Amino acid sequence: MIQAKGYAAQAVNEKLAPWNFERREVDNHDVQIEILYCGVCHSDLHSVTNYWGAGIFPLIPGHEIVGKVISIGNQVKKFKVGDIAGVGTGVDSCRECEECKSGYEQFCPEGVQTYGSIDKSGKPTYGGYSNTIVVNEDFTFHISEKLDLAAVAPLLCAGITTYSPLRKWKVGKGHKLAVVGLGGLGHLAVKFGVALGAEVTVISTSPNKKTAAKKLGAHHFVVSKDEEQIKSVFHSFDFVLDTVSANHDINPYLGILKTNGTYINVGLPPEPWQISSFSVVVGNKSITGSGVGGLKEVQEMLDFCAEHHIVADIELIDIENINEAFVRMEKGDVRYRFVIDMATL
Amino acid sequence: MIQAKGYAAQAVNEKLAPWNFERREVDNHDVQIEILYCGVCHSDLHSVTNYWGAGIFPLIPGHEIVGKVISIGNQVKKFKVGDIAGVGTGVDSCRECEECKSGYEQFCPEGVQTYGSIDKSGKPTYGGYSNTIVVNEDFTFHISEKLDLAAVAPLLCAGITTYSPLRKWKVGKGHKLAVVGLGGLGHLAVKFGVALGAEVTVISTSPNKKTAAKKLGAHHFVVSKDEEQIKSVFHSFDFVLDTVSANHDINPYLGILKTNGTYINVGLPPEPWQISSFSVVVGNKSITGSGVGGLKEVQEMLDFCAEHHIVADIELIDIENINEAFVRMEKGDVRYRFVIDMATL
Repeated sequence: MIQAKGYAAQAVNEKLAPWNFERREVDNHDVQIEILYCGVCHSDLHSVTNYWGAGIFPLIPGHEIVGKVISIGNQVKKFKVGDIAGVGTGVDSCRECEECKSGYEQFCPEGVQTYGSIDKSGKPTYGGYSNTIVVNEDFTFHISEKLDLAAVAPLLCAGITTYSPLRKWKVGKGHKLAVVGLGGLGHLAVKFGVALGAEVTVISTSPNKKTAAKKLGAHHFVVSKDEEQIKSVFHSFDFVLDTVSANHDINPYLGILKTNGTYINVGLPPEPWQISSFSVVVGNKSITGSGVGGLKEVQEMLDFCAEHHIVADIELIDIENINEAFVRMEKGDVRYRFVIDMATL
Repeated sequence: MIQAKGYAAQAVNEKLAPWNFERREVDNHDVQIEILYCGVCHSDLHSVTNYWGAGIFPLIPGHEIVGKVISIGNQVKKFKVGDIAGVGTGVDSCRECEECKSGYEQFCPEGVQTYGSIDKSGKPTYGGYSNTIVVNEDFTFHISEKLDLAAVAPLLCAGITTYSPLRKWKVGKGHKLAVVGLGGLGHLAVKFGVALGAEVTVISTSPNKKTAAKKLGAHHFVVSKDEEQIKSVFHSFDFVLDTVSANHDINPYLGILKTNGTYINVGLPPEPWQISSFSVVVGNKSITGSGVGGLKEVQEMLDFCAEHHIVADIELIDIENINEAFVRMEKGDVRYRFVIDMATL
């Protein structure tokens, strides 16, 4: 086994603290990565608090991983030692189901998550808040060295989560796109929307995010709590991409859609929505959701980012400050994503 | 003015009874139709009971109209006297808004409904439970004389309501389509789904509709109240077209969708749905609705029906039996659409 170290929660709601553990040996199709940076995702916090239940502890979070390949299995073809590589939310799947065969490995019923999951050998998976990880090459992505690697990390979850639905729905030139919420996901949604040629409006509860939204490239800004402002954009968007994870009424966002408009949820708020059939029948509107992306699409997104010079806006932190970062993240006090500098481990 | 006769409700919840009224004179772009047949839609009943509010009385229902052109305005180009023509749910719109310009006249904010609406001259519109109607030629459709004209009538609302979403979502060969509810809308959805090449499953609360479903061309039949049967089709449909107008939980219908599957509502149940964001995010699923169709698409649907020999299965009734037909329709006791033989007026 490979000796590894990381920051783990030993039980639900416990603070993250240093922990030594083991990774599997590098198998034929595996790459071993020295982790350089790991993004801090809302899901990491949700997992530690067991918000979604079914947590496996000790738990090492982290699924926005960027590092350097330091060892490869003898049948690995995609990577060589020294390559810059990334790992996202998943590390394995069955490769045989309809989802795997059609590029939606993230929905494979036998999919293995990067952390808090049980892998095919029956052992728990541990995430990227650690010095090294061993991953099957299929679930490892190439990353352009042209980009700021720390700022690339959030692309592996926040990036693909917002990129994937924009591509599925062919959002681009001639479209009016509203991005709801300007956090880790939202700020990347703005960058993607602009890069794809859409006219982008940021909708936020905080009036003081206007300057930041414009700086990110957004063309317009609307305060969601201001009824007059929401009324002024009634029936005007082709797409609404809602990145807010807190509970909120989505009906106003159906109202601001044009005929044939599409509301896309990626924020996963916990409480159910109350929606009238009239809200979708009148105007042929759609409510849809999107969960990360498949392997091919993650690589496509990373290549798109290299081509368009898109990375996240981040605050780089030392790993010893991760618990404080969780507290700040919960308050929305981060612009826009914490990334851990793993050299500080 | 043109003297006309019809069956009207003089006030909310009153029974329909004979009533003499006036239609406007035939204007430059109008056609006058002698009504031969008029379908009986659930909306007709809803309007008489003021279910959706805002009713205008006296009210003459009917928006599934088939008849013969008996007079044309001097600038009419689409029709000549003697042509068979149809009128659907709308009789006018602004022609200038985004909806009108893109073929979605049914959502024009200034749209005029075939009955229970106020037209541009400020007068109420009266529907097809009458001997004649005067309609702008743009809102009048050509109907093939090859088809059984009585059975064509329901195509003008029930037909386009189910045809439009199947076309928008490109339902066809290689797709598994579930049609929920086997009434006026559902039975046409089955015919369209089969004609478009989809593998069609009817889902109904009534086990005794199985034979009828198969006779309509459905490939499979599932009883919605049988949990085991619903479980057996979990995660198996590309599309669910839900035609049920009574309140019901749609969450099981999200569960039977595959990854990227789409639930389409056309039944317009009155009570709001409770939907978890997870139901759409996990599997990139969509919930959408569809309301009738635009002018171009209604004609396309009628042409499609002529080509594929599709008409509704109907019970032809005398107009004096309309109140009894309403009672039976409310109980679901009709296979599958009542059509009034207007010669009995």
